[in-house]
Amino acid sequence: MSIAVAVLGAAGRMGQTTVAAIEAAEDLELVASLDMGDDVAALAGVADVAVDFTVPSATEANVHALIDAGVHAVVGTTGWDEDALGRVREHLSRRADVGALIAPNFALSAVLAMKFAEMAAPLFASAEVVELHHPRKVDAPSGTAAHTARGIAAARARAGLGPMPDATEIDPGGARGADMDGVHVHALRMTGLVAHEQVFLSNPGELLTIRTDSFDRSSFMPGVLLAVRTVAGRPGLTLGLDGYLDL
Amino acid sequence: MSIAVAVLGAAGRMGQTTVAAIEAAEDLELVASLDMGDDVAALAGVADVAVDFTVPSATEANVHALIDAGVHAVVGTTGWDEDALGRVREHLSRRADVGALIAPNFALSAVLAMKFAEMAAPLFASAEVVELHHPRKVDAPSGTAAHTARGIAAARARAGLGPMPDATEIDPGGARGADMDGVHVHALRMTGLVAHEQVFLSNPGELLTIRTDSFDRSSFMPGVLLAVRTVAGRPGLTLGLDGYLDL
Amino acid sequence: MSIAVAVLGAAGRMGQTTVAAIEAAEDLELVASLDMGDDVAALAGVADVAVDFTVPSATEANVHALIDAGVHAVVGTTGWDEDALGRVREHLSRRADVGALIAPNFALSAVLAMKFAEMAAPLFASAEVVELHHPRKVDAPSGTAAHTARGIAAARARAGLGPMPDATEIDPGGARGADMDGVHVHALRMTGLVAHEQVFLSNPGELLTIRTDSFDRSSFMPGVLLAVRTVAGRPGLTLGLDGYLDL
Amino acid sequence: MSIAVAVLGAAGRMGQTTVAAIEAAEDLELVASLDMGDDVAALAGVADVAVDFTVPSATEANVHALIDAGVHAVVGTTGWDEDALGRVREHLSRRADVGALIAPNFALSAVLAMKFAEMAAPLFASAEVVELHHPRKVDAPSGTAAHTARGIAAARARAGLGPMPDATEIDPGGARGADMDGVHVHALRMTGLVAHEQVFLSNPGELLTIRTDSFDRSSFMPGVLLAVRTVAGRPGLTLGLDGYLDL
Repeated sequence: MSIAVAVLGAAGRMGQTTVAAIEAAEDLELVASLDMGDDVAALAGVADVAVDFTVPSATEANVHALIDAGVHAVVGTTGWDEDALGRVREHLSRRADVGALIAPNFALSAVLAMKFAEMAAPLFASAEVVELHHPRKVDAPSGTAAHTARGIAAARARAGLGPMPDATEIDPGGARGADMDGVHVHALRMTGLVAHEQVFLSNPGELLTIRTDSFDRSSFMPGVLLAVRTVAGRPGLTLGLDGYLDL
Repeated sequence: MSIAVAVLGAAGRMGQTTVAAIEAAEDLELVASLDMGDDVAALAGVADVAVDFTVPSATEANVHALIDAGVHAVVGTTGWDEDALGRVREHLSRRADVGALIAPNFALSAVLAMKFAEMAAPLFASAEVVELHHPRKVDAPSGTAAHTARGIAAARARAGLGPMPDATEIDPGGARGADMDGVHVHALRMTGLVAHEQVFLSNPGELLTIRTDSFDRSSFMPGVLLAVRTVAGRPGLTLGLDGYLDL
Repeated sequence: MSIAVAVLGAAGRMGQTTVAAIEAAEDLELVASLDMGDDVAALAGVADVAVDFTVPSATEANVHALIDAGVHAVVGTTGWDEDALGRVREHLSRRADVGALIAPNFALSAVLAMKFAEMAAPLFASAEVVELHHPRKVDAPSGTAAHTARGIAAARARAGLGPMPDATEIDPGGARGADMDGVHVHALRMTGLVAHEQVFLSNPGELLTIRTDSFDRSSFMPGVLLAVRTVAGRPGLTLGLDGYLDL
Repeated sequence: MSIAVAVLGAAGRMGQTTVAAIEAAEDLELVASLDMGDDVAALAGVADVAVDFTVPSATEANVHALIDAGVHAVVGTTGWDEDALGRVREHLSRRADVGALIAPNFALSAVLAMKFAEMAAPLFASAEVVELHHPRKVDAPSGTAAHTARGIAAARARAGLGPMPDATEIDPGGARGADMDGVHVHALRMTGLVAHEQVFLSNPGELLTIRTDSFDRSSFMPGVLLAVRTVAGRPGLTLGLDGYLDL
């Protein structure tokens, strides 16, 4: 028996890619493609799961409407703050049969890179993060790299590790990059690239490198499909795809 | 209070490196350096932990003597088979206060690379392993690469994944490398290298690479010291350093 | 003054990408898009340069027609043998004002990787080649990797270098890959990848890695445009884009 | 017939490594190991070539004494400025039979990486440099990385290329690194590493990476030996090992 899936924001770039991926999956059935103005409540009894790739101004209302309709929600739209997450958590506490995943990144390789970096961090003397993105990006470093660095810093702190060794005294141009909670992060902006990250972890005599390359939007689809297949079995709110990976 | 440590095989290359690493660690005290002919039983009441980097023909007797002496054992010597492991397990069942670790590889980056590859494997359509070693190595692929490939294959099987896609029809020279349980392994032999591995895992639009570089013997020391600090709290027999990493 | 460019095979995948790239270039003007059945001779006096991405059965006749029409030719179609190249060379010897480039690969990074590997080869004790492609490819290794390996082997031979060190005795599965003129070549086939190559060159204590990643067809366009802008100044037949790079 | 070689600064770390490398080379004969206080002039008629790994305060006087003695000089000592180089050049103009090489880096992979980056730079839209060194280094970026970036910038300028695309507006921590003549340079400082560099060059759809890893001092020896074998055939002053590589 296949899972009935609706896509919200189906006309957008991520929405179109999602529609195509669901149509190509044998165990999933696309039952609705919604865009601005369409009625989410009408999905009650029609869709098992809805994927939301809409816009920050619409996504919270969509999620509450999906919960009311008894439809599990997989959300890739950004813009969620703690207050908004709290309201969803509260709403779900009254609907024990519904699950929701809100995730900033569905690329499995990026999600795993963050997780592995955090797991490895307490075991290495040094760790730094290099990210590479297309040159149209306005902010540096990337959200994923910042998240990775903070995860490394937190894991080191939990393990009681002190600051990493660094004798740098002369660095007039700032080549050492951004210091995020004690972890240095470096950002490259290059034509032709999409989204790439290298995490370096080292000890005397050894170097561990975790590298992730996302070449295009299709890289998000294995993660989206995994979430669609998993969400019904995970009532309540889950933050981040790694919550579904059972690592 | 520091941990009292003895080194068995102290005159060998790994033994010497271990002696130096223990002497440099503030929380460890080197209490004995033994070599062929020295009496392991004399360590009773003297050493808390003993590190064994001897030879296959000596290591099993050493471990039993250490257990009898109430000394925890960290063993990096190779050559253990299932029968020998069973005898140690049985012996330890009668000494609930003693722990032993027998591990083929103490390089944290290599141990983590194997573990991460196995964790990631069910989530990717394709996976292959490339290892690079010095050209004096007589066997290919390396034990670590073979172990990594088998771990990937087993994880894919548990997840119900079928064979990886591969349309190769024409490969007169064998460029596709060794097929180990369905996972292709490639071995490079190059002057100046020591021990290096790259695991590639991919999905549509994304590539995850886990790379480990061991430049010299010192790369084993963080893992050896971690084991020395952990073994007293882990009674019974543990196989592989990842058993101590709490990943 | 812009260069007037015609595209032959304009309806194919490479042809379409070329048409778009020429239309986007300020110094180039697309004057004709031809496909099967269209008359190449009609380009005389209309196009300065023609780009041929047709099929092996058509490309030689196209090139001769272009030479007769006084139109410079940039050819990416494969399937040329020595006899066919000889006929073009002879034809061009009678038209000193016309230039032609026939090149198997227009990706600048791949062309440079081959060139750099050949230049570096005499200076290193060891060299091996790893290529990664999509899993629909039927042959291994790739033409580019084979060409790279042969270039390395020839450069070593010219420098009087002997065989590379390799003590491998035990390799039941063929993990050492294909031996091409003494240079080992390894081929990976993975979902989501396009065309990638790593050349490793090492000496005691050092490793030089030249890596090229082609993510999509657009990677050929900088090389095609460079050829379109250069061909008029290079009468006669040139084989391979590196002939235009003035390295 | 072997080449007679003297080593100046033979007691230092680089000097000792050089002595060992010369003794291991069949075509070279070590005829003198000099240190502070030894008389360089006494090498006349004894040594064909002298290798100078002394200190900035001694090297210039050594080189002039070698020229007077008719001994070819291979110099790895740093601290040369334009005036000092000018004096050596002038001195050599009066001794047409003597050659001297003054080079900041003898690691072939590093020298080639700089050269290849400069050759490739005009053909790519974007280029950035990442270097990784041990954490005891006090300055960032490394001299090699700075030299690489300036070589890229100069090659782009000669080719008439403008600034690289970069839309960064928000970078509070300086993750974009140091801007050296328009080329961004990033420096990592990590336990266990020695000297490593990655040069990234990209176009739409493609990425070329040139990576060099120096694991230990032995990595300088192939370059030193190449210089010792070449210097007699290159009268006058040569700056940089790439001047001997005939690329």
